[in-house]
Amino acid sequence: MSVLSEEQNAGEKRTIISVDAMGGDRGPATVVAGISRSAKKNPDIGFILHGPKDELEKLVARRKLLAGRVEIRDAADVVTMDDKPSQVMRSGKNTSMWSAVDSVRNGEADVCVSCGNTGALMMLSVVRLRKLPGVNRPAIAILWPSSNPQGFNIMLDVGADIRADERDLMQYALMGVSYARNGMELDRPRVGLLNVGTEEHKGRAELKAAHELISEKADEANFDFVGFVEGGDIPGNKADIIVTDGFTGNVALKTGEGTASLIGNLLREAFKFSPMSRFAALLAYTSLRRLTKRIDPRRVNGGVFLGLNGTVVKSHGSSDATGVSAAIKLAFVLAQSGFSKKLAARVASTVQLPQDDVGTGEKNGK
Amino acid sequence: MSVLSEEQNAGEKRTIISVDAMGGDRGPATVVAGISRSAKKNPDIGFILHGPKDELEKLVARRKLLAGRVEIRDAADVVTMDDKPSQVMRSGKNTSMWSAVDSVRNGEADVCVSCGNTGALMMLSVVRLRKLPGVNRPAIAILWPSSNPQGFNIMLDVGADIRADERDLMQYALMGVSYARNGMELDRPRVGLLNVGTEEHKGRAELKAAHELISEKADEANFDFVGFVEGGDIPGNKADIIVTDGFTGNVALKTGEGTASLIGNLLREAFKFSPMSRFAALLAYTSLRRLTKRIDPRRVNGGVFLGLNGTVVKSHGSSDATGVSAAIKLAFVLAQSGFSKKLAARVASTVQLPQDDVGTGEKNGK
Repeated sequence: MSVLSEEQNAGEKRTIISVDAMGGDRGPATVVAGISRSAKKNPDIGFILHGPKDELEKLVARRKLLAGRVEIRDAADVVTMDDKPSQVMRSGKNTSMWSAVDSVRNGEADVCVSCGNTGALMMLSVVRLRKLPGVNRPAIAILWPSSNPQGFNIMLDVGADIRADERDLMQYALMGVSYARNGMELDRPRVGLLNVGTEEHKGRAELKAAHELISEKADEANFDFVGFVEGGDIPGNKADIIVTDGFTGNVALKTGEGTASLIGNLLREAFKFSPMSRFAALLAYTSLRRLTKRIDPRRVNGGVFLGLNGTVVKSHGSSDATGVSAAIKLAFVLAQSGFSKKLAARVASTVQLPQDDVGTGEKNGK
Repeated sequence: MSVLSEEQNAGEKRTIISVDAMGGDRGPATVVAGISRSAKKNPDIGFILHGPKDELEKLVARRKLLAGRVEIRDAADVVTMDDKPSQVMRSGKNTSMWSAVDSVRNGEADVCVSCGNTGALMMLSVVRLRKLPGVNRPAIAILWPSSNPQGFNIMLDVGADIRADERDLMQYALMGVSYARNGMELDRPRVGLLNVGTEEHKGRAELKAAHELISEKADEANFDFVGFVEGGDIPGNKADIIVTDGFTGNVALKTGEGTASLIGNLLREAFKFSPMSRFAALLAYTSLRRLTKRIDPRRVNGGVFLGLNGTVVKSHGSSDATGVSAAIKLAFVLAQSGFSKKLAARVASTVQLPQDDVGTGEKNGK
């Protein structure tokens, strides 16, 4: 802690983010470039960086901006994209990912960022940070470009678990509300429950039951429940938060990414078609750049693990420096707002002994 | 039958399509404009048009191209978008939709096209046409713009049923293969099973069981099974046919449509931003038009109901004349290839007494 503590006197209110330097597709140089970018933009961030000490020291030394703002924690091993989560739990104690999560566990950092293997990161986070009391299944929430004024919707779960019953879905709604309030400054977010139609009689039994449960919590937890929404509403402006199970959410997320990338490729092809269209492309450059910036997945990089004692931000495995920097910004905003504690309070205040609370009518709907 | 039979002598090989003129958002004038467009392009199509006789006679009389090529079947009632399917089954005998489906049932037409209420059309089709022997759940298949050489992938089920077990998924694979062969002329289509990861151990139990079942049928039914695919592969080139349950498929379809439409809107906005960008847009017009044409949902209009004794094409409720004409073209291609009979043969040859066939190992996977 020596380096950081000394510097702490200078930049008093520095917020510490724990960063896993390894496991991303582009290696630690990209991660260091990303934290350097964040450090430049924001003087209030400090970093604990986890990975092989010698390698990281060299990378950090090259960036003058990072002098005195990074503490390196030596971790010799790396979790690869192919490692099975259970295997990492058994023999991953010396990995940078384990070390990065443990900095949150130990209270040295409020939020952890990693570009590594999602499954392993999730399992490590659950085991090391533990679930919040009352939370059955944690969730991964992402930001989705949308036609809403804030430019993004929150969708969860996008893949922490492939199942979710009505109580899980209700908790996703509460966690999403807390995220929207602290991460996007929406006072009274609108929650929609993803289904194949908007009529109340439609869909699977657990969705009808969840509809009832979420509806009951809306006033108390200060959000608007807009009821069932459809796939087309994920990038739309009917709701700010889209609640769904991790199977459906993961398919929807990847379908949206795939569709956007297909259109991008076709657009590039279209502009390459003739000399005339190449000339048009030159003129259209700034317009297209504006569009690209608006829907650039790197700029909304960061799936957030919710429902744990501490917050973990999962950056895309293929993140470049811009992507890593975006994930760190998100981690900083959440850390600054005291998100982890607020979320815990929110869940605790609305979930009383969930196992025993069977007196309501929703079980009949099944 | 008078008009059509007389004309039949002139255009000998005319293929008859049964068309529901009512129930679309834009009314019968748009449907008549659509069939007129198809009639112009293709001299081999004849139509049986269902709806209120007086209204339709006036609309058809205005189009000289349609003279002698349309037989009108009087049906006074209309199925609206708000009608519940069960209600249509009870009291919908005089609707244009019922009449349109019954023309396939009676063998007067091989394929039926409707822009009406999907749920009602599905229930009517199942009850009036009946399921093929061995098919438990019929499916709706759609074409999805993709980076494959043929420009499209087939995805099913996108909403006929919200559930599907491993046997249903296996039958979707077989039906999709038959569709790809007859509708897209792919000799040996590649089938992918939609999941949240590509590793064999991932996903829900029924998906693992379906993986085994589909894999077993691949050689016999002459297709390639590429295993699990993810949401990003729906518009990709890893598979030609994406198999999934109707809940997931419906969400994916609407998410893709919503994402494409968001990007379209943002693109329009970007080009309106400044005089310079408006000028660029003018120059880029043909390039953008080429792109729009490539992903225009109207040009791939038509969800196909599979697994019944006869084929039903569901056109978008909001279809304009171009959309209706695209759905009719698809109906024509399928009718000409004898698709309904070939699909029935395919299912019959590979599904022997499905209820009794429990001797294989796939049950152990559950």
